[in-house]
Amino acid sequence: MITGPDLQSLVSQIADEMRARPDRGRVADYIPELARVDPAYFGMAVALPDGTVAAAGDADTPFSIQSISKVFTLTLALGIAGDRLWKRVGREPSGSAFNSIVQLESEKGVPRNPFINAGAIAVTDVILSGHKPREALGEILRFMRFLSDDQGVAIDKAVAESEQRTGFRNMALANYMKSFGVIENPVDYTLGVYFHHCAIAMSCRQLALAGRFLAQSGRHPATGLSVIQAERARRINAIMLTCGHYDGSGEFAYRVGLPGKSGVGGGILAVVPGQASIAVWSPGLDAAGNSHLGRIALEAFAKRSGVSIFGA
Amino acid sequence: MITGPDLQSLVSQIADEMRARPDRGRVADYIPELARVDPAYFGMAVALPDGTVAAAGDADTPFSIQSISKVFTLTLALGIAGDRLWKRVGREPSGSAFNSIVQLESEKGVPRNPFINAGAIAVTDVILSGHKPREALGEILRFMRFLSDDQGVAIDKAVAESEQRTGFRNMALANYMKSFGVIENPVDYTLGVYFHHCAIAMSCRQLALAGRFLAQSGRHPATGLSVIQAERARRINAIMLTCGHYDGSGEFAYRVGLPGKSGVGGGILAVVPGQASIAVWSPGLDAAGNSHLGRIALEAFAKRSGVSIFGA
Amino acid sequence: MITGPDLQSLVSQIADEMRARPDRGRVADYIPELARVDPAYFGMAVALPDGTVAAAGDADTPFSIQSISKVFTLTLALGIAGDRLWKRVGREPSGSAFNSIVQLESEKGVPRNPFINAGAIAVTDVILSGHKPREALGEILRFMRFLSDDQGVAIDKAVAESEQRTGFRNMALANYMKSFGVIENPVDYTLGVYFHHCAIAMSCRQLALAGRFLAQSGRHPATGLSVIQAERARRINAIMLTCGHYDGSGEFAYRVGLPGKSGVGGGILAVVPGQASIAVWSPGLDAAGNSHLGRIALEAFAKRSGVSIFGA
Amino acid sequence: MITGPDLQSLVSQIADEMRARPDRGRVADYIPELARVDPAYFGMAVALPDGTVAAAGDADTPFSIQSISKVFTLTLALGIAGDRLWKRVGREPSGSAFNSIVQLESEKGVPRNPFINAGAIAVTDVILSGHKPREALGEILRFMRFLSDDQGVAIDKAVAESEQRTGFRNMALANYMKSFGVIENPVDYTLGVYFHHCAIAMSCRQLALAGRFLAQSGRHPATGLSVIQAERARRINAIMLTCGHYDGSGEFAYRVGLPGKSGVGGGILAVVPGQASIAVWSPGLDAAGNSHLGRIALEAFAKRSGVSIFGA
Repeated sequence: MITGPDLQSLVSQIADEMRARPDRGRVADYIPELARVDPAYFGMAVALPDGTVAAAGDADTPFSIQSISKVFTLTLALGIAGDRLWKRVGREPSGSAFNSIVQLESEKGVPRNPFINAGAIAVTDVILSGHKPREALGEILRFMRFLSDDQGVAIDKAVAESEQRTGFRNMALANYMKSFGVIENPVDYTLGVYFHHCAIAMSCRQLALAGRFLAQSGRHPATGLSVIQAERARRINAIMLTCGHYDGSGEFAYRVGLPGKSGVGGGILAVVPGQASIAVWSPGLDAAGNSHLGRIALEAFAKRSGVSIFGA
Repeated sequence: MITGPDLQSLVSQIADEMRARPDRGRVADYIPELARVDPAYFGMAVALPDGTVAAAGDADTPFSIQSISKVFTLTLALGIAGDRLWKRVGREPSGSAFNSIVQLESEKGVPRNPFINAGAIAVTDVILSGHKPREALGEILRFMRFLSDDQGVAIDKAVAESEQRTGFRNMALANYMKSFGVIENPVDYTLGVYFHHCAIAMSCRQLALAGRFLAQSGRHPATGLSVIQAERARRINAIMLTCGHYDGSGEFAYRVGLPGKSGVGGGILAVVPGQASIAVWSPGLDAAGNSHLGRIALEAFAKRSGVSIFGA
Repeated sequence: MITGPDLQSLVSQIADEMRARPDRGRVADYIPELARVDPAYFGMAVALPDGTVAAAGDADTPFSIQSISKVFTLTLALGIAGDRLWKRVGREPSGSAFNSIVQLESEKGVPRNPFINAGAIAVTDVILSGHKPREALGEILRFMRFLSDDQGVAIDKAVAESEQRTGFRNMALANYMKSFGVIENPVDYTLGVYFHHCAIAMSCRQLALAGRFLAQSGRHPATGLSVIQAERARRINAIMLTCGHYDGSGEFAYRVGLPGKSGVGGGILAVVPGQASIAVWSPGLDAAGNSHLGRIALEAFAKRSGVSIFGA
Repeated sequence: MITGPDLQSLVSQIADEMRARPDRGRVADYIPELARVDPAYFGMAVALPDGTVAAAGDADTPFSIQSISKVFTLTLALGIAGDRLWKRVGREPSGSAFNSIVQLESEKGVPRNPFINAGAIAVTDVILSGHKPREALGEILRFMRFLSDDQGVAIDKAVAESEQRTGFRNMALANYMKSFGVIENPVDYTLGVYFHHCAIAMSCRQLALAGRFLAQSGRHPATGLSVIQAERARRINAIMLTCGHYDGSGEFAYRVGLPGKSGVGGGILAVVPGQASIAVWSPGLDAAGNSHLGRIALEAFAKRSGVSIFGA
């Protein structure tokens, strides 16, 4: 693992290379508000256990974390429901697109894993249970602020409303699960919370800081508090590795070799167990819906710093 | 990592625990020859870089490695075809059973990954290319003997013939791929080699030794020769992690946290990058077709020795 | 074709036989209001071109026509949109259950035919276009009253509301189609009309009368008015034959040999082209969701009167 | 029904119109031998109960009947196995392509109907049972000669061998069914008979004559012998209507309104119950694999002569 000044120069170097590349993928267009983001942005931040951050490019510009929020809602839901959560959602790769509904039909409404849309909606339903949407959302937001040591983390309401107006596919998924009893709260409540936590805006710096507990056996380095048991932190990393990039999860594991979770806003959170958490952001996506340059940047980082979990 | 005498006592302890458990899963019955194996067997072996092996239980009894052979044929095929191999087979988890044909229809005959049956047949076809079945099989066998430092590794012909007589599902998969041009050799040739390399019989000790290169950046520890480039060794580990246990791959990653590949003979080969390769064998399978006690033994091993790739 | 007194005695005989049978299928339980209907009911009515009706059993008891309404909404929508309708819905058998969502994913939100739920929702959306839900519903109801020469036909609001509260699967289908632009009106509007026209209550006598135009080249016998062009009447009959009984359509064609459309309320409307329209009602359903005794009664009727469209 | 001289002039008129059309579809290219057929051919023949035939165009040129043979093998198999046949094959439309394998996986190897490839292979297996391939084939051929009153009907061996060399998809289907026990004979035997009966060459005249029993309550008009019970003839017509044109069956019922069975050689056999059997041939196919001009010619014939089974 490269540390200190070497780490900063590596991150800066990669950011420079990425900003120069002409191939940037396609910005997500299915949420109108996201379609307006400039594809030229590129940011990267690496947070170490001691709280130091190596950052470069647009690492302090907030972006819509979208599905990356699913890592944090999964963490919260495991704290609330423990292993009972796994009655409502599986933990196998799906072999299909992020918003596919086919698998739900053959598996009686139980989504394959917590990182495809259907699974994340089911997880949100667990967090909501017994609360009002506003309360559940407040809890999620407080969690994100605590993890990133930053009270400035907020929800981008324009994005949330944009998705709420146009998220028919997610409404289909939620109603479909509801028909099997997998969703317990009113569909509108669950989706309201879901659309809003996906619309949390964070910078790479904030996101890398928020992800530290996954690299640190479940502990929050700044306070020493246990966010989640060490075994659960490992297991979340395992699910990120197998399911974190939709139907591009195998490709990410193959090329980058680190647990990671992408969002259609163009962000990726990656974890180097025991060493660091990394956030990258480039809005253009590849065919599987993952950040095109984000993945390439992480591949370069893992290769040059030798941090693959699959060997030297 | 536990080493030396501690490692031996850990392996012995786990073997004792496993032999005492009443739940043993179900022995595979779709290959008549395999259906006769006694479910009471349990063996385990851990091979370290220096060539020492900690073994317990039936670690020296040969068993049919079946799909574990796919790790080694993938290694050979990458040596032959390099990255051109990936035109014939993908590297994403399949989200379905080991012998499913559904995905082949929607993806024009290209199997999802090299570890489901269809993908392994396509990989075998690459190895066969330009050779006679006997020659290709000889090459595979020599490779296995070299990796395990043991000239005694052999093919169990009764098993190969049993599968050849009854392997209609694999004949369907191969003919289906042939109809899309994904199989280039005569279907009978490719399947002949496939059935025979699946019928290789090895003990846990031999298998753990054969897997060392995956833990050692692609190098064969005994000779220092490079079996495969370090990057490719890492990537094979990544595919083992995401696809090595069919539709139970997510579960294995979640519970064990190591790259692994199972076979319906009840064996599993697992890799601790940089540290060790591990083979376990218990013939009874779980619903996804993976060794029931084998997985439990590896989960116990990873937990007690703290070797998960996903963190401490 | 049996006529006059013979027809009445045949219908009475079949009704008697059906009421005596112990096997009655299972009453639909997914709409709470329908689950309360007594499975002992059996009614049958045959309407001839001259307006005479041979009726027996509970032929004057109203029941929820459910999906049989789809024949009439298809007729109305063809009148409104003509062949442009077929851009929004196909006319092929689906090969899957009435509420399956799988096919919608592979065919970009266009349902296979107007008689599965998704297709009927799309047809309702065409009728709604440019109207308020109340107006569209009024038009459908006036149409049913006109066709059956009976101003007493009405909507069972308890059933409509029961389905509106629990119809999550249909909400999923509608939102899914909306995500592809196949539904143009607000989902709640379209579903509101859909749930209400499915909740129309009619007796066998009313329903048989309403179906006469399909047997009479599209003409309404009482007034001589053309309900629809003769070619379109034939084509609606064709779609009833191939798609009218969900995934039991082949079975119905094979056994009965007449165009027909079933509803989960236990009703079936069948057509003898040029001769008669027939309504039967028995609330218990078979595995494919079609009236169990209703089909058997129609099979007996077709056999004894020799009216199969497939030959003498 | 138009008869006598009117019928001849109608058939001639349609043949003239069809020969003049520029749109001819695409000749099947997946069987090399068929790919060479000139798309300019067009033939049509209508056989009446009294044995008179109205023919036009290339009505006396033999072509490969391909899947039309499945109507006759179904008839034979029903004679051999009776209703036990329906344990090996269903009678529902498939909702997918003629050579799809997806449905077989979810329905445990039982094909949906006797007219998709998998179903026809299962039917052939029933005919073969207890015979040598040569004997079964002889029986099929004698049956075709008897039905068409023509000893000249023969198998085109070049076509049979062409398909045998390249029919990997059918080999996949057969092996897949074999793995579920749906095929009882050796796969090679069953496929050998299947490929050969598909390769029977007949002219429109011969084919129209052979189909008369379906229009005549199962009787062979020339001899008065019963080929099959009247009820079974009706039911075969029903299956032709719902399943006779693969995933274009709904379209054919909608446009033509007659039971029919197509083959990739470009032929279609249609039945007017009680009145006539019709054969057309034009080698170019539409997207669903059915003769493009053949369907248009039958649509014109049904419309102008008013013979739809769905009404006047």
